[in-house]
Amino acid sequence: MNKFGFLGLGIMGSAMAKNLLKAGFDVTVWNRSPEKCEELAALGARSAATPRQVVESCGITFAMLSDPAADEAVCFGTDGVLEGIGAGKGYVDMSTVDATTAQKIGAAVTDKGGRFLEAPVSGSRKPAEDGTLIILTAGDKSLYNEAMPAFERMGKKVLFLGEVGKGAEMKLVVNMVMGGMMSIFCEGLALGAKAGLEVTDMLDVMDAGAVANPMFKLKGGLIAAGNFTTAFPLKHMQKDLRLAVGLGDWLGQPLFTAAAANEAFKRAKALGFGDEDFSALFKAIEK
Amino acid sequence: MNKFGFLGLGIMGSAMAKNLLKAGFDVTVWNRSPEKCEELAALGARSAATPRQVVESCGITFAMLSDPAADEAVCFGTDGVLEGIGAGKGYVDMSTVDATTAQKIGAAVTDKGGRFLEAPVSGSRKPAEDGTLIILTAGDKSLYNEAMPAFERMGKKVLFLGEVGKGAEMKLVVNMVMGGMMSIFCEGLALGAKAGLEVTDMLDVMDAGAVANPMFKLKGGLIAAGNFTTAFPLKHMQKDLRLAVGLGDWLGQPLFTAAAANEAFKRAKALGFGDEDFSALFKAIEK
Amino acid sequence: MNKFGFLGLGIMGSAMAKNLLKAGFDVTVWNRSPEKCEELAALGARSAATPRQVVESCGITFAMLSDPAADEAVCFGTDGVLEGIGAGKGYVDMSTVDATTAQKIGAAVTDKGGRFLEAPVSGSRKPAEDGTLIILTAGDKSLYNEAMPAFERMGKKVLFLGEVGKGAEMKLVVNMVMGGMMSIFCEGLALGAKAGLEVTDMLDVMDAGAVANPMFKLKGGLIAAGNFTTAFPLKHMQKDLRLAVGLGDWLGQPLFTAAAANEAFKRAKALGFGDEDFSALFKAIEK
Amino acid sequence: MNKFGFLGLGIMGSAMAKNLLKAGFDVTVWNRSPEKCEELAALGARSAATPRQVVESCGITFAMLSDPAADEAVCFGTDGVLEGIGAGKGYVDMSTVDATTAQKIGAAVTDKGGRFLEAPVSGSRKPAEDGTLIILTAGDKSLYNEAMPAFERMGKKVLFLGEVGKGAEMKLVVNMVMGGMMSIFCEGLALGAKAGLEVTDMLDVMDAGAVANPMFKLKGGLIAAGNFTTAFPLKHMQKDLRLAVGLGDWLGQPLFTAAAANEAFKRAKALGFGDEDFSALFKAIEK
Repeated sequence: MNKFGFLGLGIMGSAMAKNLLKAGFDVTVWNRSPEKCEELAALGARSAATPRQVVESCGITFAMLSDPAADEAVCFGTDGVLEGIGAGKGYVDMSTVDATTAQKIGAAVTDKGGRFLEAPVSGSRKPAEDGTLIILTAGDKSLYNEAMPAFERMGKKVLFLGEVGKGAEMKLVVNMVMGGMMSIFCEGLALGAKAGLEVTDMLDVMDAGAVANPMFKLKGGLIAAGNFTTAFPLKHMQKDLRLAVGLGDWLGQPLFTAAAANEAFKRAKALGFGDEDFSALFKAIEK
Repeated sequence: MNKFGFLGLGIMGSAMAKNLLKAGFDVTVWNRSPEKCEELAALGARSAATPRQVVESCGITFAMLSDPAADEAVCFGTDGVLEGIGAGKGYVDMSTVDATTAQKIGAAVTDKGGRFLEAPVSGSRKPAEDGTLIILTAGDKSLYNEAMPAFERMGKKVLFLGEVGKGAEMKLVVNMVMGGMMSIFCEGLALGAKAGLEVTDMLDVMDAGAVANPMFKLKGGLIAAGNFTTAFPLKHMQKDLRLAVGLGDWLGQPLFTAAAANEAFKRAKALGFGDEDFSALFKAIEK
Repeated sequence: MNKFGFLGLGIMGSAMAKNLLKAGFDVTVWNRSPEKCEELAALGARSAATPRQVVESCGITFAMLSDPAADEAVCFGTDGVLEGIGAGKGYVDMSTVDATTAQKIGAAVTDKGGRFLEAPVSGSRKPAEDGTLIILTAGDKSLYNEAMPAFERMGKKVLFLGEVGKGAEMKLVVNMVMGGMMSIFCEGLALGAKAGLEVTDMLDVMDAGAVANPMFKLKGGLIAAGNFTTAFPLKHMQKDLRLAVGLGDWLGQPLFTAAAANEAFKRAKALGFGDEDFSALFKAIEK
Repeated sequence: MNKFGFLGLGIMGSAMAKNLLKAGFDVTVWNRSPEKCEELAALGARSAATPRQVVESCGITFAMLSDPAADEAVCFGTDGVLEGIGAGKGYVDMSTVDATTAQKIGAAVTDKGGRFLEAPVSGSRKPAEDGTLIILTAGDKSLYNEAMPAFERMGKKVLFLGEVGKGAEMKLVVNMVMGGMMSIFCEGLALGAKAGLEVTDMLDVMDAGAVANPMFKLKGGLIAAGNFTTAFPLKHMQKDLRLAVGLGDWLGQPLFTAAAANEAFKRAKALGFGDEDFSALFKAIEK
């Protein structure tokens, strides 16, 4: 049986690694704050002191880090991934980073003889726990095939999208659509409320029609309840909108609606809602 | 058993009246072009020569007319609804019109002693045929209750929203959200395509995630196939966005995202796509 | 010498009528609140009790009323303009109204045998006092020629734009540009201020370059001083932006920038700045 | 008398260096394509083979390079500015670059003991030739004072804005306002033209009012004539709008109008107008 490594045990990574353990895989974990490893160790994981040790001891190592800076530090830093990688070994980076970062790390891994697959996910805490993430891979196809048994435990859908960078771009496109939907949704709720409609009625009507979607159902109820507990931070959604608008700039695709949504999220961030859930956009729109 | 009247046998009205006939109701129909009545007559409907005759001979008369002008003509014109309405009779206007038109017709009907219910629907040809419309009623609650047996055959969900005008406003809010979603969806597909992503992959990813909705699934496939056969005309969606933005103006609700989507649909209309399906927005965005 | 009538002695009308008196013309004035006539009478004006009396006693009557409702009331009401108008008489409506209102009044005047010229102005209190308005006329060319001696005292530039309605549309276009400029100007000042630039430096640089214009110079200084004393009310600018975006809807011209500016002004109005000067947009943008 | 160096003899740099020569200064020039130096040499300039030689032989060296890449190459490359700079020497970078590039070059120059002043300009070919640029300096105040005799020949207005980076940010703010003005201006012209107004009438009215500015006057006439000969390339304006919107992102300033204008320019670029004058935006808006 394959030995899997796992770097990064935040909310997402921890849930994903647990799913690997539950499936009976041999998993070696590392986290910057080592205490996070204990919970996993209690479930049967091995712990390692550095990313390098994880990569050295496992055939395929997964990473789920918080941002490009952390992702690069774990790869390029002292006792990092690059010091352990080598011929035959695979590195699957599931962190959400931009295409450029993914390509930089991918190039470094293959330069050392390793194989690289970017594999950002769509979905947040709940799908991570339930093993129902959508996994957007790109890069080394053989690694994709070998990692599949693990992917199947972490996600409900796995796509292979081509060369490194396509995973990041797919995620950006999907998040841009999600952000635009949230913006028009909040505008609709705010408009209807000012017109004297009940929010629950609006949610009912939308949930019965062609626009019905899990996000409106879940977030609509929370918005109605004034509950903006963070599942996906507003500032991260705004960052994705910014990056998507920037990608459109690069590729020559005007994005009027996305640009307007981006400014709306920027305003929400400027009003102090950046660390709340991205549905807190509603508070900026209704006022 | 109640005798129902039905005015207006276009694509929507015809399908809705058929569902009443199938349920065994006694239905009297009228249409401006009388030949449309024949198909319904073959299914057991009675035909009348004028809206007045329909209203005179039925306890409750439904109307499904194409726009505010037709709606007013049928109500206020010679041999129109007002000439037949009277104490105890009910008029249920299911046409999509603005709140002002609904209020004007409602006031005229109640002035004559009749009862009025506005009842615009969410959903187009297919839900009309399947009897799965969402019916947004407002006005006379007793009429709402009496019309329920008919509503249950035409729709899967019926809401009572309060005073006349709320039905029109609810529909406007929902269509505004739908239009904004179409705009960000088309921007996402256009951006991803320019980035080299497969449209089918994008649709797959969105369909597996929190933004999954019937509209993306249906329209996405048609967009990918270049099929813009009209289900809901683009120019009507643009009109709804215009009205929604205007409602926001009236109510003091800024709507940056909806306004951007409105301009995008205006551009699509200016490019000649007004009579195609509203998903033809994609053609205006990608070029 | 021609006898001129003048209806409406608000801030604008009063200043304009005074310029006619100063030039030595025989001027008969009317105002809804008659006390406003006294100031003009002290300067040599005759007073009349109704619009009808003014029109009956003068060859050409000018009107400067506050909005379409007032404009219609003075024309169509009891003892209104229509009751006094007749063959040979001219009515010059300088009020700012939409093209439809101008056309309606124009048709009524010509139906009675009179001649009609719409003549909205560009410029507010100061240019009205200084006789430096820009006068945008359309309609009867002979009336335009006969009214010229009066126009030359009220304005520094007079254009004849064709059929009735073109004056209103020209004013709308110019005000739309003005509103869009104010929006991008406020965004620039707010951005620069957040970047640590001095507002006075920004104003200096813009005033020295290709974008230098009297509005930036005047309003920029007032914005820097936090002085939003009303010269042109923000809510009126927002109304003009709404009408311009609506005209674009009608004519098939997408207006993304104007639509964004319109929403920005809507927000400023929703924040309570509607009665302040339209430069109070700055307060809505910077926060 | 001070000896001045000048690096970069494109359209702008060549005109600026000529003004220094005309004023009688001792000027040493360098350009990547050496043939451009000949024209200046004919006017009395000395030529140098490398940036390093220029810096070594002059007390103050000015640079006017086309973009950040060229700017960095000339500073950091072999035989570049850094190899010649040293205690007492001044480097005045008049190229239009982002604040980050300016800060990077500034730090490198001061690390070597030199003094640095960023000094981007507002104005294009004509003001460069006429010596009427607006010069936006920031950095070393003593260098600012010493360079003033040269600045006075190149510009009509010189501002000192504080620490390095402020010059770039001021230019960005001003160009953002300029781009937004062009966008609303083109929308106004396109709307008016569709309404049947003459472009010349619109230009006349705007030129007589509070929004009158040299840009509308100059570009309006050229737009009316269909002349989009490049003075300031559309793609550069779009880049500046992108950077300004990005600066707003960084500083927490939503910029709805600028973002809409940015997308409009992106669309014009996507339609193939990127190398034409930025007024070619009109062609993208009217169609």
